[in-house]
Amino acid sequence: MADINRQIVLAELPQGKLTPANFRATEGSIPSPADGEVLLRTLYVSLDAANRAWMQGATYRAAINAGDVMAGGALAEVVESKAANLAPGDLVFADTGWQDYAAVKGKHLTKLPRIEPLPHLLSVYGVAGLTAYFGLLECGLPKAGETVVVSAAAGSVGSLVGQIAKIKGCRTVGIAGGPVKCALLVRELGFDEAVDYKAGDTRRQLKAACPDGIDVYFDNVGGEILEAALFNMNTHGRIACCGAVSQYDGAAPSHGPRGIPGLIVTKRLVMRGFIVSDFAEHNAKAMADLQGWVADGSLKVREDIIDGFEYLPTALVGLLAGDNIGKRMVKVR
Amino acid sequence: MADINRQIVLAELPQGKLTPANFRATEGSIPSPADGEVLLRTLYVSLDAANRAWMQGATYRAAINAGDVMAGGALAEVVESKAANLAPGDLVFADTGWQDYAAVKGKHLTKLPRIEPLPHLLSVYGVAGLTAYFGLLECGLPKAGETVVVSAAAGSVGSLVGQIAKIKGCRTVGIAGGPVKCALLVRELGFDEAVDYKAGDTRRQLKAACPDGIDVYFDNVGGEILEAALFNMNTHGRIACCGAVSQYDGAAPSHGPRGIPGLIVTKRLVMRGFIVSDFAEHNAKAMADLQGWVADGSLKVREDIIDGFEYLPTALVGLLAGDNIGKRMVKVR
Repeated sequence: MADINRQIVLAELPQGKLTPANFRATEGSIPSPADGEVLLRTLYVSLDAANRAWMQGATYRAAINAGDVMAGGALAEVVESKAANLAPGDLVFADTGWQDYAAVKGKHLTKLPRIEPLPHLLSVYGVAGLTAYFGLLECGLPKAGETVVVSAAAGSVGSLVGQIAKIKGCRTVGIAGGPVKCALLVRELGFDEAVDYKAGDTRRQLKAACPDGIDVYFDNVGGEILEAALFNMNTHGRIACCGAVSQYDGAAPSHGPRGIPGLIVTKRLVMRGFIVSDFAEHNAKAMADLQGWVADGSLKVREDIIDGFEYLPTALVGLLAGDNIGKRMVKVR
Repeated sequence: MADINRQIVLAELPQGKLTPANFRATEGSIPSPADGEVLLRTLYVSLDAANRAWMQGATYRAAINAGDVMAGGALAEVVESKAANLAPGDLVFADTGWQDYAAVKGKHLTKLPRIEPLPHLLSVYGVAGLTAYFGLLECGLPKAGETVVVSAAAGSVGSLVGQIAKIKGCRTVGIAGGPVKCALLVRELGFDEAVDYKAGDTRRQLKAACPDGIDVYFDNVGGEILEAALFNMNTHGRIACCGAVSQYDGAAPSHGPRGIPGLIVTKRLVMRGFIVSDFAEHNAKAMADLQGWVADGSLKVREDIIDGFEYLPTALVGLLAGDNIGKRMVKVR
């Protein structure tokens, strides 16, 4: 084992947009696990829009502060174990942060099956896949024949939401930025239509793409796109609130979309926020479904794997700018 | 039967705030009911914030246009019937509009029990009571010991919501405008605390009044007060969206509250819009509960009855300004 622990620290909280200059590379020692802990070696770090939200303050986790090793979930391997539930060689998903090695309490970790290719454990079989699955099916409650719209549709979660909606017999419309992503959605991922929000007037484009209105809107972005969807929702429609990436990369969230609460009332909509761990007791069923759909080809997995620890800052900044297609991660070793 | 049918017409759509000058008094003939219709004589006209929203465009009903007899629900008596389900002398709740007589299709009307005092059929046993009951219990899903907050708490719906929440064992906080209403909530209607939004910083006042956070927020107003509630909601809290009176009395709704969708996600909130007819199949159970609570004194009914047809315009304008305590109606005859 090399005795160097590469680390990337959040040198200062961003004022406005996040840039690579907000980070600083450093080295630490390899920690020794205490009783109940495991020493983890990071394999692939997951890049997520939520990483940026954590810099705005406490959410469902504590805020990240200047000087901290940057937080982030990763696929990691147990190197040394002082926890009864894990042994060396086991794979886990853990918040290692942006570093080669981390000592983490074992009791909150679950051993993952060693499914190849390993990056699938961060995409379709990881938080992204489970988020798409539970958010769509438990919060969106789609019925066959209904129209499902998802934003950030070429992203890690959105690309799966649209495909799962198709599997469930829905008409599926994706919202993404630019013609390349939009073409991918329709030609490769089986969406019925794609709306390019960068082409302007998303509300009118959505109306044209959804002649029967929207029954389920899976929202990854908030802001103006949420507003555009609200005005196209059908009576008794459902909005699954998964994220608000349009609001993260700035000092503080701006005001909310027009139509709230007016349209919520008149259309009798349900907006429901969720995070994936709310449904953890149903993970086994979800994993079985997801593995079945991948095996039979009805669910295509797009991954955007960047090789090299040092690219973590630019990988996150690029993700916030919408550079990625599918699940973005950095291969650390 | 007098052969004059007094009518009040919406002479022009309001530009900005509604004023009595937007209306015009006139007289029409007494209509003859066609086959399937009943001729109704209006007894009490219900004043509702939604009356103003109908002037902004189509909602769950068609918009009101300039030149129309002003729309509005009323307690009315059947004078002549060409509908099989109704007979002269029967009481109904119907959209007679602001006039003495209206011919209305019988099939959408339900004969009301002749409960005294009759105004209760427009308040606790009418739309207001059922809205409070279903909105709180079906959308808010309060559990004993939880904290329930309601806005427009001295109004027709809000005053009942808070009392029903107390009956269900909740800590109850009302938001109202001014010290008179706030004192009434605590001293007469049994609220645990009242917050005067006119005293400023509703968000901080709510925090002080809800030391354990808000589990259920029953929203009648939208806007800044909804925003203040959002920031005080507990994880897995529920927001019942009943109305948005802060948004009605102007040309068009302004933007939405901050924190949407960000707080919806991080706190995993559910916002649910509803209108009372969504729950019509459960009306009998609701009526039985409401009558029981009124009979045993656990539900106090406040009514604000204005005597005289000609006061309809000022009664509505005053309601939008928050002049009323409890259910406002105009006694027509």
